[in-house]
Amino acid sequence: MEIAPPGLKGLAVANTMLGAVRGQEGFFHYRQHDAAELARTRSLEDVWTLQMSGALPPEKPQVEPALLRALPEPVSRLLDESARWVTDPMVALRIGMLAVGDQEGRGPLLDRNPEEIHGDAMRLAAVVPTILARHYRRRRGLSPVDPDPQMGHAADYFRMVTDSIPSAEAERAIEQYLVATLDHGFNASTFTGRVVASTGADMAGSLVAAVGALTGPLHGGAPSRCMQMIDEIGDPSAAADWTRARLGAGDKIMGFGHAVYRAEDPRGVVLREAAERLGGELVDRAAGIEGEILAVLAEWKPDQRIVTNVEFWAGVVLELVGLPREMFTPTFSVSRSIGWAAHVVEQHEEGKIMRPSARYVGPQPVVAPTV
Amino acid sequence: MEIAPPGLKGLAVANTMLGAVRGQEGFFHYRQHDAAELARTRSLEDVWTLQMSGALPPEKPQVEPALLRALPEPVSRLLDESARWVTDPMVALRIGMLAVGDQEGRGPLLDRNPEEIHGDAMRLAAVVPTILARHYRRRRGLSPVDPDPQMGHAADYFRMVTDSIPSAEAERAIEQYLVATLDHGFNASTFTGRVVASTGADMAGSLVAAVGALTGPLHGGAPSRCMQMIDEIGDPSAAADWTRARLGAGDKIMGFGHAVYRAEDPRGVVLREAAERLGGELVDRAAGIEGEILAVLAEWKPDQRIVTNVEFWAGVVLELVGLPREMFTPTFSVSRSIGWAAHVVEQHEEGKIMRPSARYVGPQPVVAPTV
Repeated sequence: MEIAPPGLKGLAVANTMLGAVRGQEGFFHYRQHDAAELARTRSLEDVWTLQMSGALPPEKPQVEPALLRALPEPVSRLLDESARWVTDPMVALRIGMLAVGDQEGRGPLLDRNPEEIHGDAMRLAAVVPTILARHYRRRRGLSPVDPDPQMGHAADYFRMVTDSIPSAEAERAIEQYLVATLDHGFNASTFTGRVVASTGADMAGSLVAAVGALTGPLHGGAPSRCMQMIDEIGDPSAAADWTRARLGAGDKIMGFGHAVYRAEDPRGVVLREAAERLGGELVDRAAGIEGEILAVLAEWKPDQRIVTNVEFWAGVVLELVGLPREMFTPTFSVSRSIGWAAHVVEQHEEGKIMRPSARYVGPQPVVAPTV
Repeated sequence: MEIAPPGLKGLAVANTMLGAVRGQEGFFHYRQHDAAELARTRSLEDVWTLQMSGALPPEKPQVEPALLRALPEPVSRLLDESARWVTDPMVALRIGMLAVGDQEGRGPLLDRNPEEIHGDAMRLAAVVPTILARHYRRRRGLSPVDPDPQMGHAADYFRMVTDSIPSAEAERAIEQYLVATLDHGFNASTFTGRVVASTGADMAGSLVAAVGALTGPLHGGAPSRCMQMIDEIGDPSAAADWTRARLGAGDKIMGFGHAVYRAEDPRGVVLREAAERLGGELVDRAAGIEGEILAVLAEWKPDQRIVTNVEFWAGVVLELVGLPREMFTPTFSVSRSIGWAAHVVEQHEEGKIMRPSARYVGPQPVVAPTV
């Protein structure tokens, strides 16, 4: 029996044409395009098209998720009932996706043709903002805001959560966040979604499994924790002492360091640009705090290059546009669901179940005499 | 970059003390005990204790799932609303588990102590029959039957689905089915649950992901398909021609052949014994059909040993006890949830995220000049 490296680290378990991360270079790409450049120059719908159809518009027809955002009335009712009990938006999201998937885009991938699977992938990713926003508002006793098919995905998400139209600058910043976080190599949630898809299960079941992995504290960050940190530090002049105290206590510093990036996290770079365009006191203060923290980290581990990761400036951007902090992690799932859906389609095309082994390390059993 | 074997086949990605399958010997075990013998001689609660606590009673305190089966009132209401729209019992199961997990046994595994995690594992597995039975009855306009903490898990599941008390023989046969299918090596659903658990996510999210994988047609069988086959064949005298026609058309024969077993599937052996104890026309007919099919398969592939798998006699047993066919696959999840929960606990103790890589096989991207 062959033994995998611990945590499967460095082991290629799938082929993909959807993109990759080059940690040493501080570079990642979606298909053959620089992802940070896409975030700077393209709409979310353009990049959604790229991932689902293989090329940017106009070569490929533009995806139109706008019409796919509306929920069937019984799913809305189910979410309203759910909001009386369920506290966690990521639980509500999974309940909503399962319910949509049961009646639309339903049936195992194995029994559906490529066109149907493409439709399932579009539909299940498109309803994410609607589900999240409905749960958010119902939990607070607010009336839900229905989707507006005239609006782009980013702006309509914001509107459904806050019941207000974002400024053009805020809309673009949200959109840049969504493009920059749509996919990122082969993380644990993408892997999970692909394992489920490899059994031939349905789109909703694959995506719901991926959402579960995303909620794991070892998987992803939480941009809201970075804003808490910025609040706690207050003035940049307090950042160095604060950071030294944390490091001395053996804590990690939220928003800094990454498993893969040794050069600057290109997502952080794009989101810092977005934050600077929005401007204001918080941006200046965050930049000051970032500089102080990086200086302490460089002095603390001189032989390592610890860089700002996506979380830090993501937190600042989402705060500046006025999304509530409890929606920061859910907002991540708005974009990442699009990435997962593209991976599920790709995995299904591979057509082979992922079925590894385990090594039994317990006491040997007593074998009873059998046939 | 190291490349994993296709489908990760034969690659050990985890250590386990929960059991293993020895395909060549036709033997599988739960911890250090012959699993088929456990199905013959022990209660479901005994084996549940073995998997969760490491030893059979009386050495370890007996688990008492009876008190854990009841659903909170708001979860029942949510399931009732869900039953107005959701058709698939495996979707309803996931909605119910997520809802229970949101308020009880909630919070990432990473933030919970071992005692709490044990409680989460017990609770989430214990509610599976209650959720499934409630959905089943509501879909049919029938009043739900609440759990009875005086009854064993197997009998109470049957009672909650059918609103009738099983005979002692039927109860024991259901229990043997549940023990025999509680765990089985490192299949795709167990793997999925462990990947999600490895991120530090919560128990419900891990189990829900596993349920998703179980619904995949490439993962597991469906005992109801075997009963359809037995119905279709009718008399054993028709079985050989029927089988030859199917093989000639390139079809697989449901209930025969297994990825791992080259000797008899020990689960099939136990379930055949259970069916024979229940007795009757169907058992004789199934045995006749089994013999005819095996003979044709032996003549069709003389150099391979194709054996009856668990599905064939599982279908007969569940039919004989009077469970509705649409509940055959859900019944599998009643037992397998216990197995998954034990695996999630074990994976959490490993404490390392499973985060493999993918190999980018698309056209190389144009790298824009960056910092």
